[in-house]
Amino acid sequence: MKTNRLEQQMAFVLEVDQLKKVERQTLIVDGSRRENSAEHSWHIALMALLLAEHVDHREQLDLLKVVKMLLVHDIIEIDAGDVFAYDDDDEREEREEKAAQRLFGLLPRDQAEELYILWREFEERQTPEARYAASLDRLLPLVQNYLSGGYTWVKYHIPEEKVRKRNQVISDSSQVLWQYAQSIIDQAKGKGYFEK
Amino acid sequence: MKTNRLEQQMAFVLEVDQLKKVERQTLIVDGSRRENSAEHSWHIALMALLLAEHVDHREQLDLLKVVKMLLVHDIIEIDAGDVFAYDDDDEREEREEKAAQRLFGLLPRDQAEELYILWREFEERQTPEARYAASLDRLLPLVQNYLSGGYTWVKYHIPEEKVRKRNQVISDSSQVLWQYAQSIIDQAKGKGYFEK
Repeated sequence: MKTNRLEQQMAFVLEVDQLKKVERQTLIVDGSRRENSAEHSWHIALMALLLAEHVDHREQLDLLKVVKMLLVHDIIEIDAGDVFAYDDDDEREEREEKAAQRLFGLLPRDQAEELYILWREFEERQTPEARYAASLDRLLPLVQNYLSGGYTWVKYHIPEEKVRKRNQVISDSSQVLWQYAQSIIDQAKGKGYFEK
Repeated sequence: MKTNRLEQQMAFVLEVDQLKKVERQTLIVDGSRRENSAEHSWHIALMALLLAEHVDHREQLDLLKVVKMLLVHDIIEIDAGDVFAYDDDDEREEREEKAAQRLFGLLPRDQAEELYILWREFEERQTPEARYAASLDRLLPLVQNYLSGGYTWVKYHIPEEKVRKRNQVISDSSQVLWQYAQSIIDQAKGKGYFEK
């Protein structure tokens, strides 16, 4: 029985290797290539460990749950693809739901359920953990974009208001991080990275 | 004061983006390219969440600590480089110590110390968390190598005994995972991936 569980678990582990091939719009910090979703997931999970002190009502936060969420949050992209932050896409939800069913469904049922629930919680942003996770998922690409000359904003002609609106999610988790994000947006504006 | 801490934390977060450029010997599962240490760290941290039930004396294990360790364990490679599993290298320790001092030293002092201690604990493999973390750091590349036609074993003419010896670390954490690892080694032997 244990062996059977282990085989299911390893089938999942090997399947999700494909997240290393899902390219995001964001460049890595030195601008040399696009980032993939696996390394992005590592980066924001690490960030979660370091910035938790800045979360409003830190004492309510279950940090292990945040990290689990961040390690899992992009796995559905293996089937559903990376969605660019400023895209509208009606069929996205359905595609992601199907992806979650197939991918998490490779695991033993209890773990499939746990990961599905974590992923839904992340998407819905109703808990302190999901809000903190979402704020990191916004903040890091914002800074990466700023450091690579406003790469995706310039490329897709994104205006300042859209960037501010998208990142305002950060303020649901942390005033300190939201202030920091705003200062980055101000600097990006000063450099002319946004569409006028 | 809080802002100053945040600036130090972000300086570290952005500096460690370079882990995405540290290439390992191992290929990703489809064999199309070498794996980098950032995506590898994501992969084994995720694995840690899923395989904990197989650890001997599971009840002693602090899972958040394991995940922290795995997210941090390779960061020193940014300065010290990836060390191939079957290489001997006398100056490695000194190089890694210097790397840890510089990289973790970018953080506020309390966090620099926490990460340094986690990294040392991982390297020393004396606690249940470090032993489990080390076993995953062995097991996944073993399976990846097997799936890519024994890639690094064939390339560097590694004999079976060396692979068994290196991976025996897994048995310090989990009999179930060690049995699984041995079955992979047996299959690799059957396919002629090891030097005779």
